Amino acid sequence: MLFFTQCFGAVLDLIHLRFQHYKAKRVFSAAGQLVCVVNPTHSLKYAPTRCAAAQASAEQGILPPCHHHEAVHDPQLVPCTCPLFSCPWEGHLEVVVSHLRQTHRINILQGAEIVFLATDMHLPAPTDWIIMHSWLGHQFLLVLRKQEKYEGHPQFFATMMLIGTPTQADNFTYRLELNRNQRRLKWEATPRSILECVDSVISDGDCLVLNTSLAQLFSDNGSLAIGIAITTSKVHSSEAEM
Amino acid sequence: MLFFTQCFGAVLDLIHLRFQHYKAKRVFSAAGQLVCVVNPTHSLKYAPTRCAAAQASAEQGILPPCHHHEAVHDPQLVPCTCPLFSCPWEGHLEVVVSHLRQTHRINILQGAEIVFLATDMHLPAPTDWIIMHSWLGHQFLLVLRKQEKYEGHPQFFATMMLIGTPTQADNFTYRLELNRNQRRLKWEATPRSILECVDSVISDGDCLVLNTSLAQLFSDNGSLAIGIAITTSKVHSSEAEM
Repeated sequence: MLFFTQCFGAVLDLIHLRFQHYKAKRVFSAAGQLVCVVNPTHSLKYAPTRCAAAQASAEQGILPPCHHHEAVHDPQLVPCTCPLFSCPWEGHLEVVVSHLRQTHRINILQGAEIVFLATDMHLPAPTDWIIMHSWLGHQFLLVLRKQEKYEGHPQFFATMMLIGTPTQADNFTYRLELNRNQRRLKWEATPRSILECVDSVISDGDCLVLNTSLAQLFSDNGSLAIGIAITTSKVHSSEAEM
Repeated sequence: MLFFTQCFGAVLDLIHLRFQHYKAKRVFSAAGQLVCVVNPTHSLKYAPTRCAAAQASAEQGILPPCHHHEAVHDPQLVPCTCPLFSCPWEGHLEVVVSHLRQTHRINILQGAEIVFLATDMHLPAPTDWIIMHSWLGHQFLLVLRKQEKYEGHPQFFATMMLIGTPTQADNFTYRLELNRNQRRLKWEATPRSILECVDSVISDGDCLVLNTSLAQLFSDNGSLAIGIAITTSKVHSSEAEM
């Protein structure tokens, strides 16, 4: 009997350890889908000039990639690849993933469809929620940003960027889906290349945009779940078939 | 030979007349879907106090139906059923459809899926584009509104209201879909009852919201096509099956 009690205790300990491990990773599977709990990256230091040229162009309806900045002389060096508000980092495209993982401890998740669960939606703007999504041999970056485009009226902007070139990005389609309270909102688009600068994509509003009240309707206990799916674009997949 | 030439001329005339007829109705069928060209209803007269009570409640996250206004003593009389900005009309629910048809010349379209083509999107706010959609034995009202919630930043708000009670509205789901320029935006929700006042739905942002730049991306030559579909809610349809 004592043996069985000890065995049972050991099994419980193992379960507890396993639970702790999952809690630490904050990635779990719900209803067959990978759910990643994403904590906010809040920064009071706002760098409005970082993509000033891109933003000025965005206001005119054009979105040049950030590596077209006049100040950048080395075409291999990209100034805007770190999408975090406060990060002044510049670097080559090839090392963006390791920069995001090492410096910002951003998780990478794999899977055709994942759920991005952003916590603490009430935090003041500017705030970023970021994960990397590895699928179809590429790394994508999902950025959810709370920002006050109009003073006193924070909005949420969500977009997916390919950590790759614009030509590579054209091969994919991403989908973001919110589903709660008898409401469903779906946004499908071609991902932008990370070279195009997340700031200008968001300032241009060419992404999923949520006002605060809609974000509240889709939130559960201060957390917003966004379903993410990435597929290859039809044109390119039919080309691949040929 | 002369006979054939005359016959050909007569056929051409008939085709021309037919074309004129369709142009006058401004409803045509494209790829099997009914397309309705909707001209804007522009008004400089803005009535911010019309739903003041509902809007004040909406700011607190509550959306009481407009017929809860203290000023309304006859429960059968509803003050907000005419969704047009400038219209001070009040009336019984049963006569809303005829008011909208006769006073505002709003079209009624029938079909499971229709395309709402709003013209002259560049017109200044406040502007409304409205049609009625008759389906599943009920009349629905699609309201697209251009409004400056934040001064100097017009946005587009689209919602579907049932010309009926909130209990009847719960039986349906509506879908609005924009699809252009490799982007797709879908909004699905339960329609609100027209008794709940379109102004408060829009001020609360519980509808499809588009900023100007996104509206431009989805527009073609100043016109915005919105695909509309209405279905019965799953819960209720399964109840009906039982």
